[in-house]
Amino acid sequence: MANRRIAEILRSGQPDESLQVQGWVRTKRESKGFAFIEVNDGSSLANLQVVINQDLPDYEAILKKLNTGAAVEATGLLVASLGKGQRIELKAESVKVYGEADPDTYPLQKKRHSFEFLRTIGHLRSRTNSFGAVFRVRNACSTAIHQFFQERGFLWVHTPIITASDCEGAGELFSVTSLDLKNIPRTENQAVDYSQDFFAKPTYLTVSGQLEAEVMAMAFSNVYTFGPTFRAENSNTSRHLAEFWMVEPEMAFCDLEGDMDLAEAFLKHIFKYVLETCPEDMEFFNERIDKSVLATAENIINNQFERLTYTEAIKLLEKADVKFEYPVSWGLDLQSEHERYLAEQLFKKPAIVTDYPAQIKAFYMRLNDDEKTVRAMDILAPKIGEIVGGSQREERLEVLERRVLAQGLKPEDLWWYLDLRRYGTVPHAGFGLGFERLVQFMTGMGNIRDVIPFPRTPQSAEF
Amino acid sequence: MANRRIAEILRSGQPDESLQVQGWVRTKRESKGFAFIEVNDGSSLANLQVVINQDLPDYEAILKKLNTGAAVEATGLLVASLGKGQRIELKAESVKVYGEADPDTYPLQKKRHSFEFLRTIGHLRSRTNSFGAVFRVRNACSTAIHQFFQERGFLWVHTPIITASDCEGAGELFSVTSLDLKNIPRTENQAVDYSQDFFAKPTYLTVSGQLEAEVMAMAFSNVYTFGPTFRAENSNTSRHLAEFWMVEPEMAFCDLEGDMDLAEAFLKHIFKYVLETCPEDMEFFNERIDKSVLATAENIINNQFERLTYTEAIKLLEKADVKFEYPVSWGLDLQSEHERYLAEQLFKKPAIVTDYPAQIKAFYMRLNDDEKTVRAMDILAPKIGEIVGGSQREERLEVLERRVLAQGLKPEDLWWYLDLRRYGTVPHAGFGLGFERLVQFMTGMGNIRDVIPFPRTPQSAEF
Repeated sequence: MANRRIAEILRSGQPDESLQVQGWVRTKRESKGFAFIEVNDGSSLANLQVVINQDLPDYEAILKKLNTGAAVEATGLLVASLGKGQRIELKAESVKVYGEADPDTYPLQKKRHSFEFLRTIGHLRSRTNSFGAVFRVRNACSTAIHQFFQERGFLWVHTPIITASDCEGAGELFSVTSLDLKNIPRTENQAVDYSQDFFAKPTYLTVSGQLEAEVMAMAFSNVYTFGPTFRAENSNTSRHLAEFWMVEPEMAFCDLEGDMDLAEAFLKHIFKYVLETCPEDMEFFNERIDKSVLATAENIINNQFERLTYTEAIKLLEKADVKFEYPVSWGLDLQSEHERYLAEQLFKKPAIVTDYPAQIKAFYMRLNDDEKTVRAMDILAPKIGEIVGGSQREERLEVLERRVLAQGLKPEDLWWYLDLRRYGTVPHAGFGLGFERLVQFMTGMGNIRDVIPFPRTPQSAEF
Repeated sequence: MANRRIAEILRSGQPDESLQVQGWVRTKRESKGFAFIEVNDGSSLANLQVVINQDLPDYEAILKKLNTGAAVEATGLLVASLGKGQRIELKAESVKVYGEADPDTYPLQKKRHSFEFLRTIGHLRSRTNSFGAVFRVRNACSTAIHQFFQERGFLWVHTPIITASDCEGAGELFSVTSLDLKNIPRTENQAVDYSQDFFAKPTYLTVSGQLEAEVMAMAFSNVYTFGPTFRAENSNTSRHLAEFWMVEPEMAFCDLEGDMDLAEAFLKHIFKYVLETCPEDMEFFNERIDKSVLATAENIINNQFERLTYTEAIKLLEKADVKFEYPVSWGLDLQSEHERYLAEQLFKKPAIVTDYPAQIKAFYMRLNDDEKTVRAMDILAPKIGEIVGGSQREERLEVLERRVLAQGLKPEDLWWYLDLRRYGTVPHAGFGLGFERLVQFMTGMGNIRDVIPFPRTPQSAEF
């Protein structure tokens, strides 16, 4: 007996096929002499309707167990459905109930639950339509990312999670330690005695794999990371997580133009892939979560991204007939409202802003000849603002050393990073994409906690 | 001008094609009126030979810069090679040197370096033949893993790295904290005041994503994790890392038979994929690192794995005409020497040992009717011993609660895990694969620190 996934049965199953399905009951509807059970196995948003005839042995007893959430195995014959809403249905010849779900205590009864409530039952929320769709789309995004890079000969590199370098200054760090917090050992000077810690020095959770990805790009030309990164920032917002996944490609022999070309092709590829492989889930988001989701995806796929410099962007913002909350002035960073004005209102499509003032960007970005701006680029998208941030890296040893010192960092801490410029240095570039921001953007989900299976946020590390 | 990767040029480049390559000089050989430069861009083990004629403008000056490690761009015409060792070579029409590498200080001169020495220059070692091959094979393994599961409809799920649960008791944990170690806040009772910590409770780095993967399998049927895991175990061996990547599939409606079938197909798929996509790298390992690498791969691919119970294995070991260092007796865990005896000497192929004594296995493994053994399985492979460990999970609430208590764990800490058995529970199973052990096995590399880009081990968190 063929055991098949429901997505595949709904797509290509034909009347008179004998098969078995296994899944969980979403709803039960009793009619005269029949019961209709909607079964879902997580392979698709849509359920398979299983029809149980009262002639089935133990009909009443089985039916009593088939409540929302119960695990069931049904064997039978596919038949054309007479009812509305489905092409085919399964006429059950036998039904086995694996695990019941007491309707008095199972929290996921058939009704609308708020996302806030569902966060408190993170171990069950994936069984709902919304979270089913989110995590199928999340998986499709991941697959699209690997496919994009692997087809182009990029190697997936695993950069370290535990790191001793605090070089990027990208915000507050989590410490990692094997010391007993109740009883931190001290040196004679009352400092922490790190010689007793696992790594014999202070270590942290990484904020980015970029510097190590550059190491690998200097050997393999094209590489990418796709792994978890961390910020101990006390931001209780709908856009911040303490633990999130990042994608960071790095390309040797590549300048900012090549970087922008790759990033644009990359975003278009992911959106195309998800629309093609998850059409049902994407329609669900467009209908139930955010009516602009499909239009935004089409906008990304079909438009050539606008490209302009930061200096041009500032001029456009100064001329804008809009009252911004934050000031616009050359040298200040763009705020979300500015980014959204450019992408949403002015260009009505994604825009890539380049060549930001050096003082508001990281030390590793390549200094332009004007000595005031760096070869940075941010991709701003309608509805969400910055989605990708990248740069051409400073490949000139003497300039990089100058920039390291200017930002108050110690060249000796970055000896290995500087070595990359000492031996066989090349122009190179890369970018970073916050994976959850992408999934949020793709699905229209309002809170970033709802696009990662187990969100980590201030005061919260459940499950 | 077509800019192409060297792997592709060596595979399919034809004489008279005009092209440009970019990479790093591996060696320079001067002849009368000519110089031969071996260029590598990381896309393959083999280099492209670039021939520079003395007629090239600035011939002497350029040649002086083209030392081992220098970054170069060469443009010219592909020609059939008259020399030995390559089918084609590039006749340079122009050569650009991006970054030099001073032969007096660049550590990677053309000679054999020990792996120990190369570990001290982890930021450069990927530029050697051995590490180039290792990380290409590592990438191929990753790709094979995603491909295997995605083709079968499994979702890649990202389970949390930071966790508040210490439930598995799988060894020593790293603490994660935002508290200042120099100044840990105290409560009135002198305990650590976790209310001031980021998550308001003690948190750790995960040792496994399994429990959370089970959550996801109860919604999507088939899922897998592929992410970093951690052990703060002070093991300074060639087989232990503090930070390593794990692959953990989890299948609903699956018993131990299905679990073993999947694991066997999975291992075979990875080996086949790597032999097909990285033949040159695999031959390199077989020649230079471990002469049994290819035979071992063929052994895995071509043999049906032996399956036997732990009880049978103990009997075979008791009868074995071998002097073991560790005792063999029902109830004791198998040691590496026992595992290797079974796979290497007795069966001469991988063996799957099942149904281990309950007291030496984790609480979540399904208890057999004998109440003494659990539905565990370990795959033992020739040369390496245990490569996969898995089990059918205990899906019966009352049995699981009993096992939790018996192992001294608190059911209230596992409330959400127990809920999976309370609502719609199903037979389910899964396994774990240590990714670096796999890469070590595949490549024959003797030390696990040499199959991950930036190893984390006691006293060492460099780069």
